[in-house]
Amino acid sequence: MLPYTVTHIDPDTDARAGELVTPHGKVRTPAFMPVGTAGTVKGIAAWELDRLAPEMVLANTYHLILRPGEERIERLGGLHRLMAWSGPILTDSGGYQVFSLAARRRVDDGGVTFQSHLDGSSHRLTPESVVTAQARIGVDVAMQLDECVASTAPASEVAAAMRRSAAWAARSLSAARGAREAGAWSGGLFAIQQGGLDPDLRAESTDRLVAAPFDGLAIGGLAVGESRESLHGAVAVSAALLPAERPRYLMGVGYPEDLLHAVACGVDLFDCVLPTRSARTGKVFTSFGELVIKNARFADDTGPLDPGCRCPTCQRYSRAALRHLFMAREATSVVLLTVHNLTYFLNLMREAREAIMAGRYRRFRAATEAARRDGADEPAPAGRGDP
Amino acid sequence: MLPYTVTHIDPDTDARAGELVTPHGKVRTPAFMPVGTAGTVKGIAAWELDRLAPEMVLANTYHLILRPGEERIERLGGLHRLMAWSGPILTDSGGYQVFSLAARRRVDDGGVTFQSHLDGSSHRLTPESVVTAQARIGVDVAMQLDECVASTAPASEVAAAMRRSAAWAARSLSAARGAREAGAWSGGLFAIQQGGLDPDLRAESTDRLVAAPFDGLAIGGLAVGESRESLHGAVAVSAALLPAERPRYLMGVGYPEDLLHAVACGVDLFDCVLPTRSARTGKVFTSFGELVIKNARFADDTGPLDPGCRCPTCQRYSRAALRHLFMAREATSVVLLTVHNLTYFLNLMREAREAIMAGRYRRFRAATEAARRDGADEPAPAGRGDP
Repeated sequence: MLPYTVTHIDPDTDARAGELVTPHGKVRTPAFMPVGTAGTVKGIAAWELDRLAPEMVLANTYHLILRPGEERIERLGGLHRLMAWSGPILTDSGGYQVFSLAARRRVDDGGVTFQSHLDGSSHRLTPESVVTAQARIGVDVAMQLDECVASTAPASEVAAAMRRSAAWAARSLSAARGAREAGAWSGGLFAIQQGGLDPDLRAESTDRLVAAPFDGLAIGGLAVGESRESLHGAVAVSAALLPAERPRYLMGVGYPEDLLHAVACGVDLFDCVLPTRSARTGKVFTSFGELVIKNARFADDTGPLDPGCRCPTCQRYSRAALRHLFMAREATSVVLLTVHNLTYFLNLMREAREAIMAGRYRRFRAATEAARRDGADEPAPAGRGDP
Repeated sequence: MLPYTVTHIDPDTDARAGELVTPHGKVRTPAFMPVGTAGTVKGIAAWELDRLAPEMVLANTYHLILRPGEERIERLGGLHRLMAWSGPILTDSGGYQVFSLAARRRVDDGGVTFQSHLDGSSHRLTPESVVTAQARIGVDVAMQLDECVASTAPASEVAAAMRRSAAWAARSLSAARGAREAGAWSGGLFAIQQGGLDPDLRAESTDRLVAAPFDGLAIGGLAVGESRESLHGAVAVSAALLPAERPRYLMGVGYPEDLLHAVACGVDLFDCVLPTRSARTGKVFTSFGELVIKNARFADDTGPLDPGCRCPTCQRYSRAALRHLFMAREATSVVLLTVHNLTYFLNLMREAREAIMAGRYRRFRAATEAARRDGADEPAPAGRGDP
């Protein structure tokens, strides 16, 4: 198993700081993983990503097996070579994308058959094939295939998907063992807890997974349309069920306030398209809330996005210049806002980690949230899930 | 006038190396100016542009006065602040864009009235207003308003546009003097030689311009559809007519072979959308000719775009990875290919300059062209003009 150590425990909350050792280096947690869907963080050159220095990045197995394909990636020397990134990579299993992006799909106990959203071609994913694909492309952390249903779906559907996902987790583990024994892979495998918003189903899901030697456990099936209150409640319940001695990963979440809450619940890892996708729609994260850069009041604003931010965008560009580039639909605007937004999310987790290590996480969270609430330009909507 | 010194003259050709001193620094010539149409080189953050270190960049007055507008740019502290670029900037006058992009337009001796391609709003440019706009936004080199007709238009049309452009040049000069005397601007003004492919008209155009204290003279009206042979012939004739003691700027050209030819004719400055626009369509410039990155034979090619290139794209990414990112329509692909293509063009002119300084330009040109011809993937088409 991948070595994981909890190095600090916050005295006032369940927040903890830790270190996960992967084949491509240490991941200091809590950590936010930028999303590099198809083999790149959108608009970000590898040397820019180096400077942003995330602890780990996420890529999407679904997208990568469709294009350029696992065989090709393996032949080219693996996903790290393709992405020109030498740090840790976690790939999701493709489950979420199959259930959100693919045209037709048919799930059975063996796996899921679907049509590519790119060209309609037919594909089948099984718990085994998904792990094998991730091992072949050389990821540091592979995720099991899971069946994703809306957290607000009928209880019987949520329960059935949870049980099927747990059965698939067990099969993933055998596939991972096989890949490791073949000697070509030394990454870890995370299982995914499911169960929607129901604490009993979350508990049953955990019971079905916890005895097996997964390198980490993820909380899946959240941030898919439920309210922020429901999300926060479910995160608290779900995280508390997971064993303390293994890393906990909350998938697809979320807004800064969601991350700060989840960290307080003992979650270690996050990914979300929010900072990168928002950059493309002109939404900017700052220490005092979100800005919509196309807002006319920024047209003559010579200040930086966030006076407290040390990212190169804030060092060089005024809000007025960024608004102009956004309005002119310049690709440079995507680059500049992505660099800023990722800096914000990565710093938020770095600062959270430092606060935990100093035993002052509760104060850090309160101060961060107060600054964002008091200075907010507009309330942050609750929806944040994206395929 | 902006100080300009020819520091080296090639013994075998008319190529020369020089230095033009602008308010934002020295421009060592021959030099290629990347195009930053609307206030940014497309996809390139300011810190990336710093690393590419062009001698001067070009921006488009037409685009900038329409959006965000000269008043706003002035209020924001000038074009350098908007672009977050502290080196020299040359702006074209907007003439070419009015004649290629604008919806309706009506030219009279006073100027040109046109409708914006963005929103149909009506605008008028005069020789005076164009210089005033460039002075207000604080450019290092302003270009006069000229009337652009196709180099292949009827002789009477080409002659009339040339004479009108010369009359406008004289008026530009008064406007520039006014802006300088007002004390807010210390940039230079270049006039534009016109006359299509007719040597007599080029000579008449030069005669009409050369006595006035323009800081430089440009060759306009080429690279707009004529054959490569015609272009090269016209460049030779046009450049030879221009005074040796002032910088010569060939507008909107071109392919590496066109630049090398023009340098041999004594041209000092170039701009072209070719490296940046080609990056967006997946065309790559190398020392052995052009590559079309989407070509299937690159799908498994683990080599860099150009093994001799030291740009960060070539240091980090394989052709296969770049092809994948291009096929997946990732914005990162634009960034990576733009960095490479600009590196190629900027290095080509740096190497040309070194060769001139060492008195070996003819050999340098021959070797560069031979390598490109022998290793070429496909012939470079002759058309290269773009609005």
